[in-house]
Amino acid sequence: MLKAPANQPLYLGVDGGGTKCRACVADGQGNLLGVGMAGSANASQGLELAQNSIVLSAQRALDDAGLPPETLGQLVAGLGLAGVNLPSVYRAMKEWAHPFASVFLTTDLHIACFGAHGQENGAVIIAGTGSCGYVRVDGDETMLGGHGFPLGDKGSGAWMGLEAVKAILLACDDLGPKTSLTAQVEELLQVRGLALAERLAKAGPSEFARLAPCVMAAADAGDEIARNIVQEGADYISALAGQLLKCNPPRLALLGGLAQPLTPWLDPAVARQLVTPLGPPESGAVRFAQQEHVAGES
Amino acid sequence: MLKAPANQPLYLGVDGGGTKCRACVADGQGNLLGVGMAGSANASQGLELAQNSIVLSAQRALDDAGLPPETLGQLVAGLGLAGVNLPSVYRAMKEWAHPFASVFLTTDLHIACFGAHGQENGAVIIAGTGSCGYVRVDGDETMLGGHGFPLGDKGSGAWMGLEAVKAILLACDDLGPKTSLTAQVEELLQVRGLALAERLAKAGPSEFARLAPCVMAAADAGDEIARNIVQEGADYISALAGQLLKCNPPRLALLGGLAQPLTPWLDPAVARQLVTPLGPPESGAVRFAQQEHVAGES
Repeated sequence: MLKAPANQPLYLGVDGGGTKCRACVADGQGNLLGVGMAGSANASQGLELAQNSIVLSAQRALDDAGLPPETLGQLVAGLGLAGVNLPSVYRAMKEWAHPFASVFLTTDLHIACFGAHGQENGAVIIAGTGSCGYVRVDGDETMLGGHGFPLGDKGSGAWMGLEAVKAILLACDDLGPKTSLTAQVEELLQVRGLALAERLAKAGPSEFARLAPCVMAAADAGDEIARNIVQEGADYISALAGQLLKCNPPRLALLGGLAQPLTPWLDPAVARQLVTPLGPPESGAVRFAQQEHVAGES
Repeated sequence: MLKAPANQPLYLGVDGGGTKCRACVADGQGNLLGVGMAGSANASQGLELAQNSIVLSAQRALDDAGLPPETLGQLVAGLGLAGVNLPSVYRAMKEWAHPFASVFLTTDLHIACFGAHGQENGAVIIAGTGSCGYVRVDGDETMLGGHGFPLGDKGSGAWMGLEAVKAILLACDDLGPKTSLTAQVEELLQVRGLALAERLAKAGPSEFARLAPCVMAAADAGDEIARNIVQEGADYISALAGQLLKCNPPRLALLGGLAQPLTPWLDPAVARQLVTPLGPPESGAVRFAQQEHVAGES
């Protein structure tokens, strides 16, 4: 088993989203030592759940790195969490009696941008369970979208899933066109017809986002309803990109589980400007923690 | 104080919806003795809450009738509840150890139809906090829509409110056209700009439905976004009516808080066929209880 290096800091980078929490442990040079994953860490959907997911993913990353569990207390943590853009959620999260050496808290968007571009300046759009845009140029940051499901997050997996269910239920009532989504979603969820409404009556964004691959597949196969949903979502993402590009970021990346499938549906002028992300959000969280830690010491 | 008549049954009619629960007490001839009201009694949104609302509204109706509280145990109750169209909710509600002499359980739609037409045959569309359609001809009944918020309930107050908030948030991000809804909803909820998303992050259908009068007012004043929302909702209600009319019901009525304001937005061919309801849903619940009670004795 590796021993924790005695004289140099160990960093924890955490990317906490609505579906998963990813953590990595790195040394002072930014070398990756281990990674870990846990469940939802969207701070606005349950503070305690988010905190538990963060600690669990960190413990797993330490284990993966071959470091002993008590190393948790030595970690300088950079947490990039969905939901902390809401002031009340940010304040609540800052009050956490966390088990780490220190915690630097920011949004999932900030660390995603840091990770994708290897620097703070840049723009990212996340299209996963939720959706949102972020641009940072010379310390000025702007966040767009990301207002949560079902109010916002257009073009996201949760939004696509809900739109699909709405269309399926309309078709069930003969109040909307038939769609191949019906059979696909019934197969995936193992429910028939209107029982879908009962099954999803209290479903959250993650459950709806599970349906997004069905919607993408049906759209790619030419289903008219699915095509309309995907195109409406993609148009929103294109418009979001257009707004971000007005700030002249050096780079723009599209991230999240829907990044690849959505790209062909985007406005070609936007798609051409997308760059490949250099690293994942959790690597950006490590860089953020390093930067804040060094700034705090200097 | 009136005494409960010794030799004839007393009936309780309850109309339980997502926002309010209305009860009335009537004698064996159907004469109204008293009315009472309480909070939400949508059985799919919390069984205990619904049961408490039913009992409270019944107690208030007894009090209004000048009958002593212990009369509760003599009441033959007809309960028409939102949510009991879902089989699991219906079964759970049937197991209630209720305080009445007997309970006959059905949907809010069935009793609304009974009340509006003074007979079982007919069709109703409810456009209030939620939306749905119901038609009953010679014992065959069909329910359309009413799949709950946010999956279904198009054209309802909750749906309108959510669509308005989505449009306001798009406008805040410069990703959608400006709308006068922004100022109206900010005024109503006393929040500014994107704080709206935080305020409504966990809002339920009743809270969104509170915004519906703003949407109707903005639409009537010519706001393009509000007009589009109201027209899309009204088109759905017109289509729902078209489906119900295929069953050839003797009468069709539009009920609920949005019935009056939505009527001018409906397809004129549908609007012309609407009749004025004869009585409220709770009077239909009394008639339903009488019918089932008599059928049980014969």
